Amino acid sequence: MKAEIISVGTELLLGHTVNSDATYIARELALCGIDLEHVQTVGDNFARLEEALRYAISRSQLVITSGGLGPTEDDLTKECVAHVAGLELIEDVKSNVALKEYFGSRPMSANQQKQALIPRGAYVFANSNGTAPGCAVPLAEGKYVLLLPGPPRELLPMLENEVRPFLLALCQQTIVSRMIKTFGIGEGLAAEKISDLLDSDNPTLAPYATDGEMFLRITAKADTLGKAKALLEPMAREIRCRLGDVVYGEDVPNLENVVVNELIRRKLSISTAESCTGGLLAERITSQPGASAIFGYGVISYANQAKIKLLGVNSKILQEHGAVSADTAQAMAIGIKDISGADLGVAITGIAGPSGGTASKPVGLVYIALNFNGKIWIQEIKPGGRWLGREWVRQRASSCALDLTRRVLLGLHLPQNVVSKEQ
Amino acid sequence: MKAEIISVGTELLLGHTVNSDATYIARELALCGIDLEHVQTVGDNFARLEEALRYAISRSQLVITSGGLGPTEDDLTKECVAHVAGLELIEDVKSNVALKEYFGSRPMSANQQKQALIPRGAYVFANSNGTAPGCAVPLAEGKYVLLLPGPPRELLPMLENEVRPFLLALCQQTIVSRMIKTFGIGEGLAAEKISDLLDSDNPTLAPYATDGEMFLRITAKADTLGKAKALLEPMAREIRCRLGDVVYGEDVPNLENVVVNELIRRKLSISTAESCTGGLLAERITSQPGASAIFGYGVISYANQAKIKLLGVNSKILQEHGAVSADTAQAMAIGIKDISGADLGVAITGIAGPSGGTASKPVGLVYIALNFNGKIWIQEIKPGGRWLGREWVRQRASSCALDLTRRVLLGLHLPQNVVSKEQ
Repeated sequence: MKAEIISVGTELLLGHTVNSDATYIARELALCGIDLEHVQTVGDNFARLEEALRYAISRSQLVITSGGLGPTEDDLTKECVAHVAGLELIEDVKSNVALKEYFGSRPMSANQQKQALIPRGAYVFANSNGTAPGCAVPLAEGKYVLLLPGPPRELLPMLENEVRPFLLALCQQTIVSRMIKTFGIGEGLAAEKISDLLDSDNPTLAPYATDGEMFLRITAKADTLGKAKALLEPMAREIRCRLGDVVYGEDVPNLENVVVNELIRRKLSISTAESCTGGLLAERITSQPGASAIFGYGVISYANQAKIKLLGVNSKILQEHGAVSADTAQAMAIGIKDISGADLGVAITGIAGPSGGTASKPVGLVYIALNFNGKIWIQEIKPGGRWLGREWVRQRASSCALDLTRRVLLGLHLPQNVVSKEQ
Repeated sequence: MKAEIISVGTELLLGHTVNSDATYIARELALCGIDLEHVQTVGDNFARLEEALRYAISRSQLVITSGGLGPTEDDLTKECVAHVAGLELIEDVKSNVALKEYFGSRPMSANQQKQALIPRGAYVFANSNGTAPGCAVPLAEGKYVLLLPGPPRELLPMLENEVRPFLLALCQQTIVSRMIKTFGIGEGLAAEKISDLLDSDNPTLAPYATDGEMFLRITAKADTLGKAKALLEPMAREIRCRLGDVVYGEDVPNLENVVVNELIRRKLSISTAESCTGGLLAERITSQPGASAIFGYGVISYANQAKIKLLGVNSKILQEHGAVSADTAQAMAIGIKDISGADLGVAITGIAGPSGGTASKPVGLVYIALNFNGKIWIQEIKPGGRWLGREWVRQRASSCALDLTRRVLLGLHLPQNVVSKEQ
């Protein structure tokens, strides 16, 4: 089945809004195994929308519009589709009730009222987050035009809860997908290890590189859920087997979530002492609901005096080795663990840049120390290749600290740049 | 002049990538006063790209493609445009030199080499961040096809440095723009105050709401830079006058940048004590290059014991008023200022949610305290309307703390929910 998207909205043509709707719809079509061949974007203009619709219907079996279903004068997608399909607009009883409930005792204008209209014979998609329903308008030759709302918070739940079942029924298919998340493996190396799997048709495998992490989405389709799951599992197993413990989770939100949940599960508390990351590690840990069960103390010791005063770092260590050194990281990790009484103390010190680097200690150099169970682990991250910015150094340093914690907790193999010793 | 964008890339149709390129190009066209009427997206497919090109050229004077200029087999935009325009591809000497410099002693494949080819007679746009140049291909009737690279880090500088001057010369115009940034005024109220200005044609005014902040971009065009600036300034003045001190800067990166620079200018140091924001405030301050000049100490006192031990908060205050209270915020701000010896101490305590709220202290309640110059300011943020998530509470709390600091430093009017007292 060949599909085409028509995005409607002058704001898209003015560059005020990124067309993320088209991406959301494209993902949904890919998920359902439907081929998307064209996207057109037009403004809130009847004649140009009509031209786009007629052109799309002439070459595609499934045309999906987003935007232009609201109550304003500019919203004319429904009127235009009804005109092109030669259908009158009639009141949809359920949508009308929902609209009246939404407005309650407040007055409703004629423009608001028109949101409950749909082309005669259309299949309605309920809008759980707004007032304008979506719908699927059947045309000749088994073709369809789907009308969907523009605001993402209305579109996204409608896509998942209403449109997906409709499309799967249309294709007589069901799908399941899983996201495998990895940290600590380059995009190139990962691609090399799984390159043959990327050619698979069912299940499909799609890689996403983001913020130093690599995600892999596996999607399987079949005529029953059981068959789809049975297709998916071997691919997931194969990927886990090839990539090993750089896989930190499947269908999990992020690395900090995995670490926080592991700490909660083991009833272990963590404390942080940060220099160059300036609070980013603590921020990521405490971004997880329930973090207060395992996190009580964090220190941002940006100045040397703060390292001495708040963490008890010996000033001799700072003088002899400098603030950015394995010894200082170790002293910070010991200090924060002692002061907080937490089970784990993690420390980060480094040079985020753009300035502050020297020949022996260049911008991007970071030391991470973890103090747990009477042992110290120290990771030295040397800047490799180009400096990609202050935020990048900070993000990577906090991710490495989280991953080191995960590996030590789970007793996994440690990266080559980690040394460990008894405290 | 009517323009049309053709975005080329199968990854766009699979939903792997959001089409932000089209937005960047749309903004540039709007800036130059060129009307964009259509965007088409097609995959890396010669026949469908040719169809899209012929259709676009038939109805638009300016066609801009993005993507498909790279070295792989999939990259065929240049070949397709040359075919449609009836032009042969010839080597561009400058691009060839740049390509050879880029590769140095490394071997270059024939596919890499083809990046230096351009359609005969095209005007070349240098690529400062990549290997494939862009170009403008002149067609009959004064029409043009512009070929631009897909990766945003190549596209964005090319748009600004190469394409903008070309387009402005084409329209015989020049433009200037300015971004006015505000914090602490709702989108609705701001829109009310400036609604009449939104209708202005030249300069134009475009609002952007983001993360609790509101930005306003003014853009003026004229045939000389002086005239454009003369058009822009009165609008900027009018907005400053109407919105007052919710405007925190013009053409500045963000609120933390304004606060950090003001502290640097006044040679004042700041220290932070955070509970619910978990390090976010310190993270935002230290994200600014040069922050080490004004920031040395931060504490994340998530647990009550941490407030007592690291900040010297009296346990009686915690018992009597609770961790989320004006008194505790005040004690934290005094504590961090004393320990750090900084000129300012800022503290945040609150309930980020989703759990942890009570009837008297609901989720979203936040207290901010600032200790400076022997005085204490305390801001109480009550949750208004819906809870928009843990991250939203934390982001807003840290922004309010930054804005309170800005207002106190500059001696501005303080919000109604702020009280001040002598220490």
